[in-house]
Amino acid sequence: MNMTQKTSPTVSAAMLVIGNEILSGRTQDANIQHLGIELGLRGIQLQEVRIVADIEKDIVDAINTLRQRYNYVFTTGGIGPTHDDITSECIAKAFGVANTPHPIGFKLLADFYASKDIEFNAARQRMAHTPEGATLIKNEVSMAPGYCMDNVYVMAGVPRIMRNMLDGILPLLKGGAVVKSHALTTDLPEGLIAEHLKSIQNVFDGKIDIGSYPKDRKVKKGYIVSLIIRSSDEEALSISVNQLQEKLIELGGKVVDGEVEEEVLFA
Amino acid sequence: MNMTQKTSPTVSAAMLVIGNEILSGRTQDANIQHLGIELGLRGIQLQEVRIVADIEKDIVDAINTLRQRYNYVFTTGGIGPTHDDITSECIAKAFGVANTPHPIGFKLLADFYASKDIEFNAARQRMAHTPEGATLIKNEVSMAPGYCMDNVYVMAGVPRIMRNMLDGILPLLKGGAVVKSHALTTDLPEGLIAEHLKSIQNVFDGKIDIGSYPKDRKVKKGYIVSLIIRSSDEEALSISVNQLQEKLIELGGKVVDGEVEEEVLFA
Repeated sequence: MNMTQKTSPTVSAAMLVIGNEILSGRTQDANIQHLGIELGLRGIQLQEVRIVADIEKDIVDAINTLRQRYNYVFTTGGIGPTHDDITSECIAKAFGVANTPHPIGFKLLADFYASKDIEFNAARQRMAHTPEGATLIKNEVSMAPGYCMDNVYVMAGVPRIMRNMLDGILPLLKGGAVVKSHALTTDLPEGLIAEHLKSIQNVFDGKIDIGSYPKDRKVKKGYIVSLIIRSSDEEALSISVNQLQEKLIELGGKVVDGEVEEEVLFA
Repeated sequence: MNMTQKTSPTVSAAMLVIGNEILSGRTQDANIQHLGIELGLRGIQLQEVRIVADIEKDIVDAINTLRQRYNYVFTTGGIGPTHDDITSECIAKAFGVANTPHPIGFKLLADFYASKDIEFNAARQRMAHTPEGATLIKNEVSMAPGYCMDNVYVMAGVPRIMRNMLDGILPLLKGGAVVKSHALTTDLPEGLIAEHLKSIQNVFDGKIDIGSYPKDRKVKKGYIVSLIIRSSDEEALSISVNQLQEKLIELGGKVVDGEVEEEVLFA
């Protein structure tokens, strides 16, 4: 981590997942975790996710709230050719512009379908519509592009396409301080170590964040709590990890570096 | 489905997932899909999900927005004994009441820890705190209860505990019309069928909802789009499924009942 990163402010992001199928439970979302990890590696903190249905007002309101509150907004879903794909109309409405054929995207898809001898009909042309002023994002999987509109990045919901689009977006983003994390796993229950976690976190006064994650176990012995210490300050991270490790041992605990898959019954 | 269900209005729900670990990508959420499915089976539509960090203002604001907008709100995460478990303080603040030891919950946990010869210390006592006026929700996995506060149901984040608490909550909820769904899978691309989906949905004027989900395929042949027709009106559902099936065959497509796992390349 270099000095620029150390002193730069937090860069924040939100994600808007658009799709009835996630809310009904038909589909398990596979994009939130991927985005959270990829942004984190680049010093961008995913701070909020919203999942909304294919309802215009809900999408427009969410976009306008999130794009003002966070540095970046990433959407997934709703950019295909069918009637339930209303993301572009909604983004256009949120920005108060028209949703029109993008000259480059339109030609790209027209040529693509011509080369396959497939009719470039009205439904397929919808995939070449973007809010006026949008910049296209490449889709190497299925051709129909995503796009960026100001600080809002619009991606497909199909995970393989989303990941391909994100790969093209990531180099364009400006990250802040990269938050590094260190995991310790212990056999001590949360209820015993809670006050010490709080004390150590308080000593570093906002520089570190300790998360405590009990494992879901059916057995009664073994490593039962993962402690994740996170900081963008490597020195603070290192010192606090050492302090925590010493405290856990002082309390009679076993401690291992990293996470251990076991399960917890009570705190 | 009986007449009461047919004519009852939509019952709506939102979910608030509280936890830095989901946003950072460290943990894959496993509760959203389960809640969406279980509510749907009881005629309650999950209409929005928000995932927020362990930040008081974010949690309080989300709770107050969602509990006014939806019939039910379900939260997961942040009710353990450690410093990062701040859900109860936040719910209390959202309702403008104190977060105090719940008489029944306090005795329950005091007796439980006494029986295990484990100190019922301040950290563990935190798990017996609820907003004043809360009704406890049983936790048969790890004892520390969830609770209900007006229309807000507060559950643990560990999936096995969340599911156990939800099992106790579901019989208490009043559902509306149960939305049934029927899946058709076809080898026709979305771009070809898009206009017909829209026409059929329009004929039923709000009574049915058709979702179109392309499969992520690497091969070029096979079944590539799942169409999910949803309705709380069984007659409308049945007629629209038949109409859609006939239209797909008329367009030269193969159609199968249900979903087929294949993958799509372009629309």
